[in-house]
Amino acid sequence: MTRERLTLYDTTLRDGQQTQGVQFSTPEKHAIAAMLDSLGIDYIEGGWPGANPTDSEFFADKPQTRAIFTAFGMTKRAGRSAENDDVLAAVLNAGTDAVCLVGKSHDFHVTTALGISLDENLENIRASIAHCVAQGREAHFDAEHFFDGYKANPDYALKCLHAAHDAGARWVVLCDTNGGTLPSEISTITRAVIDSGIPGAHIGIHCHDDTGQAVAGSLAAVEAGARQIQGTLNGLGERCGNASLTTLIPTLLLKPAFADRFETGVSRDALKGLLRMSRKLDDILNRVPLRTMPYVGASAFAHKAGLHASAILKDPTTYEHIDPAQVGNARIVPMSNQAGQSNLRMRLADMGVQVEKGDARLGAILDEIKEREDQGYAYDSAQASFELLARRALGQVPDFFEVKRYRVTVERRKNKYNRIVTLSEAVVVVKIGDEKKLSVSESMDSEGHDRGPVNALSKALAKDLGPYQAVIDDMKLVDFKVRITQGGTEAVTRVIIDSEDGQGQRWSTVGVSPNIVDASFEALLDAVIWKFLRDGVQPCQN
Amino acid sequence: MTRERLTLYDTTLRDGQQTQGVQFSTPEKHAIAAMLDSLGIDYIEGGWPGANPTDSEFFADKPQTRAIFTAFGMTKRAGRSAENDDVLAAVLNAGTDAVCLVGKSHDFHVTTALGISLDENLENIRASIAHCVAQGREAHFDAEHFFDGYKANPDYALKCLHAAHDAGARWVVLCDTNGGTLPSEISTITRAVIDSGIPGAHIGIHCHDDTGQAVAGSLAAVEAGARQIQGTLNGLGERCGNASLTTLIPTLLLKPAFADRFETGVSRDALKGLLRMSRKLDDILNRVPLRTMPYVGASAFAHKAGLHASAILKDPTTYEHIDPAQVGNARIVPMSNQAGQSNLRMRLADMGVQVEKGDARLGAILDEIKEREDQGYAYDSAQASFELLARRALGQVPDFFEVKRYRVTVERRKNKYNRIVTLSEAVVVVKIGDEKKLSVSESMDSEGHDRGPVNALSKALAKDLGPYQAVIDDMKLVDFKVRITQGGTEAVTRVIIDSEDGQGQRWSTVGVSPNIVDASFEALLDAVIWKFLRDGVQPCQN
Repeated sequence: MTRERLTLYDTTLRDGQQTQGVQFSTPEKHAIAAMLDSLGIDYIEGGWPGANPTDSEFFADKPQTRAIFTAFGMTKRAGRSAENDDVLAAVLNAGTDAVCLVGKSHDFHVTTALGISLDENLENIRASIAHCVAQGREAHFDAEHFFDGYKANPDYALKCLHAAHDAGARWVVLCDTNGGTLPSEISTITRAVIDSGIPGAHIGIHCHDDTGQAVAGSLAAVEAGARQIQGTLNGLGERCGNASLTTLIPTLLLKPAFADRFETGVSRDALKGLLRMSRKLDDILNRVPLRTMPYVGASAFAHKAGLHASAILKDPTTYEHIDPAQVGNARIVPMSNQAGQSNLRMRLADMGVQVEKGDARLGAILDEIKEREDQGYAYDSAQASFELLARRALGQVPDFFEVKRYRVTVERRKNKYNRIVTLSEAVVVVKIGDEKKLSVSESMDSEGHDRGPVNALSKALAKDLGPYQAVIDDMKLVDFKVRITQGGTEAVTRVIIDSEDGQGQRWSTVGVSPNIVDASFEALLDAVIWKFLRDGVQPCQN
Repeated sequence: MTRERLTLYDTTLRDGQQTQGVQFSTPEKHAIAAMLDSLGIDYIEGGWPGANPTDSEFFADKPQTRAIFTAFGMTKRAGRSAENDDVLAAVLNAGTDAVCLVGKSHDFHVTTALGISLDENLENIRASIAHCVAQGREAHFDAEHFFDGYKANPDYALKCLHAAHDAGARWVVLCDTNGGTLPSEISTITRAVIDSGIPGAHIGIHCHDDTGQAVAGSLAAVEAGARQIQGTLNGLGERCGNASLTTLIPTLLLKPAFADRFETGVSRDALKGLLRMSRKLDDILNRVPLRTMPYVGASAFAHKAGLHASAILKDPTTYEHIDPAQVGNARIVPMSNQAGQSNLRMRLADMGVQVEKGDARLGAILDEIKEREDQGYAYDSAQASFELLARRALGQVPDFFEVKRYRVTVERRKNKYNRIVTLSEAVVVVKIGDEKKLSVSESMDSEGHDRGPVNALSKALAKDLGPYQAVIDDMKLVDFKVRITQGGTEAVTRVIIDSEDGQGQRWSTVGVSPNIVDASFEALLDAVIWKFLRDGVQPCQN
């Protein structure tokens, strides 16, 4: 069976950056582009070169991708030639193989927002696309407000598309810029575009989620004949977000209505990495992943209703629309930890611990994980803390030392030059064997700047652990993530700390407390103990 | 023009309670029912009497509503009469005017999950509905897995519907229980149901969001002829949630494709309370409201792209699909390094400050924002800190008081019972006019639990601000977000604090420092100063 090819166009790095609260750094843009490329996206839109310093910096050192890397810009302004428009020149100077230019297609916007004649706008579209093509680039035209424009003046909206198409645009993209168009309208209007003479294989769709229907609108356009979908990872984007590729891709690959007719650049194997990718993006943004996200949300395969859970045990297809493993997700059935035990045994085996099937300690470990997760702990990334929890339950973690107490002070005051300075100071008291050790440290870095209370605490804890000191001398804190796991005054803080040693070994630990300093201390302590275990340190005798 | 009546059926209190992490108390159920009733919902499903203690308690003291209050249950089990099924009896004993019974309509589930014959199941449906009708109740039938059932065995699925319809069910509801059915399939199958002889005025639709299309699927069913929609507030519900009435209602009332054809029990006036209702539900659940929610999300009318913001200034309809005030929402033009002077002028105008186009101070403010964003500040959500920055640049922020110094201690030690305890303590010293004030506070909440150093600092700062104290007495910290803006030891911490006062006014401030306590202090200080300005406090003379 031959299937038609659907093209996926990602705009996470451009329209996704319009999300309130989102501002990617250049290294973050590189990390996201690499993720998209490994997923099998066809086009990666990197941003708007010249529009802001980050985008310019990113394009100056643009990633090498298998996907077609694309620069975004706008059609030339009236009153100058495409060759002499400096905004357009900055876009072309980025030197990408493809260029996507947004332009008006709604008469009201041409006259109100731009204040030019309808014919001038058509000429702007034509000349801009022709200029890109003459420069040897693949040109795309994003028809802004296309659906609203079509409803107001269908002839003119179509003329805009044809101006781009006739000038050699590879794709004309129907944009529902304001997000208010309903799927049934998208369907009717997309058909009208095809009837006007632009083949579906040259038509893209760009939807926003302002009525909660960005995914449905995109699929309606495909059903009507469009063959390119624009979207973003996790549905990032202006206002309510763009169509989520994280939702669209599994639907296209797993639902027969689409999977039987179409193929995309995403393999079934790459699809299994979808959840991991979605989480990594949230990690970069330091966002709490949305539990209810279709396919990849933590609750997407959680069966809470009692009737559902018991049927699931007989046959998972009774209450699951797909097998969660296909997107890297897992079933959660609160009543049964059968599946949990085999997962756990696998994870223990990974760290070199063999436990027999049915061992009662497996259930005890799962119970403790569940209880701690309820308190706000998260063990998916904090592998070292998970390992400590499991080894403690199995009696494999000796008492290396005891923390008697610590105290951290943060002070802000004026110094002798009447300038405001802050300073943190930590004292940690431990007992090793029979010996009590007091260590003190302040928070200054080598340039004399305050690095805060966690820095001071970390240095004091690792300053003098007596006979163990040699093992941790090369250990350093390399990353520190903080997340508030519940809103409001009852918030609990989760701290995840990444540590590294002289051999480049890296490990992650977690701490949870309403007190951020205490949560950090817990994670620091786990990091030290894990290092002792890994290096086979023998405990001092008490 | 006569419009057809669409019926809205809310299941927040039943299917919404299947959301992972949600468990309503009886008073919460009462509060939610009252909200739904004031909105103008037609049916309020209160839960399953007899299934759990909370639901039984709620029905024992059921609310008096204008809406038809409905009890949920399931069709009788095989091998006994409807009169002798104790589960069904508990539902009827709740004494509600309407009863909604779920039953099987997918042959596979009848034989696999129930393990009975197909005919027995038909008889269970018929007898259960007939029994409710004989008791003088309005009976509804929720046809579980109807779409999957129809795809597998259309004849049998239809027979189940007809068994209920012929027995006198007021509504038969087509449930996409597993949430995997696409809107185009829902459309085709709903038409087939009508063609089989059940009028659309007796057909309801119940969708889940597992492919992100619960809203679209519900609307597709209405377009195909169904006249009742089941959904939940904020899209609560099993797994990815149910169809969100919070999204559906404004679409039905404001989009001509529906508003011109249909009317509902929700008035345009009640619609203006939608945002408040959505927030109140999140408040009850202690959830952070989802910013990207269609219509009512805090970002739903946030215009971040510079081009959009300048057009919005000329005419808001250029980039808004509806007027946000219609749902009680408001336009936001956040600042970010993508924004230009027109964004800034608009945002200043929103806070009541008129600055002429081209005023040199606009450039100075933008430069300062840019410089601070490079340091890690983010102003698109911290509106109050933005306002302070702008007003300071315009010379509109008096010196209310001076912070001389503060000191925070975090201590972990063993108490007299040899248990580990942590305690934080803060001292803040301010100078108001000529008077120096020292305030001290510790971090304990009302239950004696340590809430950490920021809590102690916040309380000490707001403890005694002398002549200003009355203004901040009703102010409280309601949310606290932390983000590390760079990895590694050079990490800088950004803290965003949401505050609230007695009138329910809420504002956000930001602080940045390598020291998390100092970053928090900066945000706390901004929160206090903003409140002074908003309340028109006059500074003391030095």
